[in-house]
Amino acid sequence: MHRALLYAALGPGKRVRPVLTLAVADALGAGDLEPVVDLACAVEMVHACSLVLDDLPAMDDAKLRRGRPTVHREFGEDVALLAAFALLTRAFGVVASAAPRLRGGRYGAEELVHHLAAAIGTGGLIGGQALDLESRPEELDLERLEYIHSHKTGSLFLAAAELGAMAADARRRDLDAVARYAKNLGLAFQIEDDLLDVLASPEATGKDAGQDAEKVTFVKLLGVSGARALADELLAFAVASLEPLGRRATALRALAELVGRPGRT
Amino acid sequence: MHRALLYAALGPGKRVRPVLTLAVADALGAGDLEPVVDLACAVEMVHACSLVLDDLPAMDDAKLRRGRPTVHREFGEDVALLAAFALLTRAFGVVASAAPRLRGGRYGAEELVHHLAAAIGTGGLIGGQALDLESRPEELDLERLEYIHSHKTGSLFLAAAELGAMAADARRRDLDAVARYAKNLGLAFQIEDDLLDVLASPEATGKDAGQDAEKVTFVKLLGVSGARALADELLAFAVASLEPLGRRATALRALAELVGRPGRT
Repeated sequence: MHRALLYAALGPGKRVRPVLTLAVADALGAGDLEPVVDLACAVEMVHACSLVLDDLPAMDDAKLRRGRPTVHREFGEDVALLAAFALLTRAFGVVASAAPRLRGGRYGAEELVHHLAAAIGTGGLIGGQALDLESRPEELDLERLEYIHSHKTGSLFLAAAELGAMAADARRRDLDAVARYAKNLGLAFQIEDDLLDVLASPEATGKDAGQDAEKVTFVKLLGVSGARALADELLAFAVASLEPLGRRATALRALAELVGRPGRT
Repeated sequence: MHRALLYAALGPGKRVRPVLTLAVADALGAGDLEPVVDLACAVEMVHACSLVLDDLPAMDDAKLRRGRPTVHREFGEDVALLAAFALLTRAFGVVASAAPRLRGGRYGAEELVHHLAAAIGTGGLIGGQALDLESRPEELDLERLEYIHSHKTGSLFLAAAELGAMAADARRRDLDAVARYAKNLGLAFQIEDDLLDVLASPEATGKDAGQDAEKVTFVKLLGVSGARALADELLAFAVASLEPLGRRATALRALAELVGRPGRT
């Protein structure tokens, strides 16, 4: 069980979401980042949980993830299921335990847990996933695809940034700024991921080539250059949202640039 | 998605766990029970989540639950998976949101969420489930079966009681007393459930007759009268644990009596 948990959580991923938590906390002056690392790990655990779930036979039935067999192919479907639930549970436990050690004042464990739960639930990641499941390919126009991915991917980017901002005891104006940044960054990240699936080799993506072939993606709807233009536009929005932060946002601007150049990261 | 959630959460079950939360909170003087109802619902959501998960094809592959088709048979396996994750997520969100409304002092959202997470994780419900999965029938002696069920069932009974006690701002001594009570009650409840599976009709249990036939249970290891004697012993322990509470524990004693008479409840 614990081997499956570690396998799921520690695969060679890009760690964009926990980096986002740490970068936001640092930009907004969290000071000691040690308890923020706990929040960042919790965000990555939720992400790892969602990958295990997505890959299951009843969902995408994926064979490869991050260049290795998916968790259910390595450990069996029953163990994969329990590992996913354990990761989600642990994420909430870690966030709750970290809360009293954060630079304090405005936000307690109730806000942190509440925001994380909202990002994951039927109004967030799970809601996006559910709409994806029940949409027939011919129903997937750009608007619906944006809804799906701003929930499936964007929500957890949002929570990652919010947790970082709360860890820094951020004022409302700064919290709103990084929230806008993170939502646009998340959607851009998803589009870049779609572009990579088309343009890069399976060795580079760590997924098997055919597994997403049937899927309606931004690249399918807009073509490669249209998808790239949309991603660039979203990243420009993301960076513009950071204006109230001034120089404090240097690392966040750099992160947006990295997301826009997946081939070089 | 929401229909599946409601179907999973609102099936005709016994609601022993949320009743336990409310009865403990009331016994220990929580006063206003309105926010405690939220905690009780969260406990039932976790339980409902675990049932959806247990029933999946990769786990017990159950056809009936609470007298109706299991969630994956009614809504498909993909929706069932998401519903289970949504229930677990919502449980944590509800507990966090309820915390500031509880009669306060000793316990904040961080303690409530931490205890719930501990009860569910690899040291609790999921750990018991994992050991159950990886145990071959010939390895299941009484000691291991007790370990499995004190985790699979006992842990959530424990958390149900702990949340109720925390809602009443309980002193450590009272918290420990209801914790001992709940652990013994949970294991006794599981044994009574095994007895029911053998003695009652599928109509009465709401499960299909054959689905647990292969399973090693307390009844298989001890026989009907041996299992009944063990359940009685555990219930006597449970009730004895309540001694520090004196008259305040009347409802909790009655609950133990109900658990010991499943045929009449």
